[in-house]
Amino acid sequence: MPARYAGPGSMLKKTSLLLREAGFTGPGLLVDEAQARRNIATMAAKARAAGVRFRPHFKTHQSPEVGRWFADEGVTAITVSSLEMARHFADHGWRDITLALLVNPLQWPAIKRLALSLDARGGRLGILLDSPAVARQLRKEFPCPLDIWLKVDTGYGRTGVAWDDRDTLRRLLAALEPAGDIRGLLTHSGHAYGAATAAGRRRIWHRTLERMTAAREVLVQGEDRDRKPVRDLESCRDLKICQNLEISVGDTPCCATMERLDGPDEVRPGNFVFFDLMQWRQGVCRARELACGLVCPIIGIYPRSHRLVIHGGAVHLSRESLATGSGDPVFGYAGRLDGNRQVLEDAPVTSLSQEHGVLQIAPRLFPALTADLDVGDLLLIWPVHSCLSCNLMADYRSLAGAPIAKFP
Amino acid sequence: MPARYAGPGSMLKKTSLLLREAGFTGPGLLVDEAQARRNIATMAAKARAAGVRFRPHFKTHQSPEVGRWFADEGVTAITVSSLEMARHFADHGWRDITLALLVNPLQWPAIKRLALSLDARGGRLGILLDSPAVARQLRKEFPCPLDIWLKVDTGYGRTGVAWDDRDTLRRLLAALEPAGDIRGLLTHSGHAYGAATAAGRRRIWHRTLERMTAAREVLVQGEDRDRKPVRDLESCRDLKICQNLEISVGDTPCCATMERLDGPDEVRPGNFVFFDLMQWRQGVCRARELACGLVCPIIGIYPRSHRLVIHGGAVHLSRESLATGSGDPVFGYAGRLDGNRQVLEDAPVTSLSQEHGVLQIAPRLFPALTADLDVGDLLLIWPVHSCLSCNLMADYRSLAGAPIAKFP
Repeated sequence: MPARYAGPGSMLKKTSLLLREAGFTGPGLLVDEAQARRNIATMAAKARAAGVRFRPHFKTHQSPEVGRWFADEGVTAITVSSLEMARHFADHGWRDITLALLVNPLQWPAIKRLALSLDARGGRLGILLDSPAVARQLRKEFPCPLDIWLKVDTGYGRTGVAWDDRDTLRRLLAALEPAGDIRGLLTHSGHAYGAATAAGRRRIWHRTLERMTAAREVLVQGEDRDRKPVRDLESCRDLKICQNLEISVGDTPCCATMERLDGPDEVRPGNFVFFDLMQWRQGVCRARELACGLVCPIIGIYPRSHRLVIHGGAVHLSRESLATGSGDPVFGYAGRLDGNRQVLEDAPVTSLSQEHGVLQIAPRLFPALTADLDVGDLLLIWPVHSCLSCNLMADYRSLAGAPIAKFP
Repeated sequence: MPARYAGPGSMLKKTSLLLREAGFTGPGLLVDEAQARRNIATMAAKARAAGVRFRPHFKTHQSPEVGRWFADEGVTAITVSSLEMARHFADHGWRDITLALLVNPLQWPAIKRLALSLDARGGRLGILLDSPAVARQLRKEFPCPLDIWLKVDTGYGRTGVAWDDRDTLRRLLAALEPAGDIRGLLTHSGHAYGAATAAGRRRIWHRTLERMTAAREVLVQGEDRDRKPVRDLESCRDLKICQNLEISVGDTPCCATMERLDGPDEVRPGNFVFFDLMQWRQGVCRARELACGLVCPIIGIYPRSHRLVIHGGAVHLSRESLATGSGDPVFGYAGRLDGNRQVLEDAPVTSLSQEHGVLQIAPRLFPALTADLDVGDLLLIWPVHSCLSCNLMADYRSLAGAPIAKFP
């Protein structure tokens, strides 16, 4: 962050003074616009270099203003994770939106309305399917101007047709005939979040691409490896669409780790705009790339037990935690703004209730870290999972004190 | 819940049809008004029988409408956990409000404004202090029409002056002289949430009262057990206030477990209005007393792996979890509405991402439980911690389909 406080005081006191100058008085979310823009620019440049469409996931920030920072980098296509989010961003001018959640048939009327409205503005709504039964059901509602992505499971094991389940892939395609609305195959390699090394994430990236390519081959060829003709594809009136099926992949751990993003047609990372302690812990980002933090007032200082208590609990940080060597969970680490961006592992948030957080400070460091702190000083807490913390916080603010709009 | 679906189908299908009749289409929160009112009436009657003020914590529901159900039981005094919540309820006519979070000095101007506004309406704002330094600082801002509660730690170990720390208790009192605004001593026995037996909770209740009484004695007598005069109390101009110091206690586990609430001057439970799986697991409530549940559309059915995937993730349920025998966390259990209220332990939510939840069904039961379910059916998921789930959800609705207002 550009701001530096040059006056006297400990690093936490200086950080507190900077946050007070920014106008924080209660729990809030500090967004470092300059760093977030750098994170966006880095990823956008990587996608451009590979000739790959950059369709960032906007569920992390849920902010029309942060969305504009992406637009400034030339982004025109986005990903969201709920119909409400899709509508919010559509209302703010976004026209090419993928709703990256399997279709909920109960929301079909609203999905169709949104698809028609985007189409009328020259845009497009994308939806995800992995079930032949749902595909047949929705097919009756067509024509509807939207892109269908077939959700494929390349190893995460949450949703999607298994990449090597040829039978279901073909039945899905057959259920959607004529196949003109099928845009391509989409996957989310959520298991990349658990890969603790860059080598592990590279393996997942490459394996994901191999498996997506294999799944596409099944659909393009319309035959299986043994060259038996696939009867249920014979009725496809427009087989040539299969030749153009796109491949959409992309999560922050893999996209931030790979030096080149060549291979897929589009990538959809989201978390990288702010990053967080999970990504930092796995080595996906460095501390200086963290671009949002929770601002929490100190409401209690307890020197005998080496604890600070903050107004900052599960309704601000979320209960997402990092495992530590001792087995005890950590819900955040304090940070500093006065010098080099840093994660203060000696100042962990070790317990959380609804509105309270407790920092158990390393005893030998308690005096130095807290000597000049008072109740009412503000701590910066790096969140474990920025997507969940941002979802919980309404009050985004820049270090210059400017409010940053967020959807309700 | 009163509604019963008498038609054919499995219990989950019948539950889904009832939820669809109520108008749910996406993730939402079902509030069982009749059961919530029974939970409120039970606790209110217990407090009345003991002649104890009932000051329920409203952080659980954050709803003006649910607040009115309390008013219908004669409740006039409430507890909240943030200044925003205090203002919302004040705007809806509540006049006697305790802000049960240690004072954040940065919010003092806003706290003072609220105190003056409640006072002008014949009401009162209560605040919490545990630090002589903060007390001295705020004292300069007086007179201000508010009640000060001294926060005491009777064993939870989060905030408050340790009940047996006579020195700090007296310094706190001295810092606040003249002591006319001191209403009493307040504690939160958060450790009661970890007590797995009714006997354990009764012990905590009694020990809490003993310790609060001992702490009050220190202040009332102005002398310690060895009868040494306490010099810093000599300057108290109005020692008689100490004779009337109230004792405020109360958490759901203890208040729901005790048959009689005699002892303190007021009790402040909150969670009991809806209860949740944590309370059910500890034996604090029965399944039929659960009064809110998450409604989540099924977006994927995977018979081979015995899984259901719902649109219902960490941004709906929160990541609060129950430990299980196997060591794997559970983020919720499916429930039914068609017959006896029940917690279906064979249908646990075993993993959560931001918007998705996965139910890993016991393999032998998968066919029977899911045979007639379709993508688009709605599951009822009992939350692990209703306070956090309610905080996350905007769309509260009754089983009759009526929206129930909640603060933003």
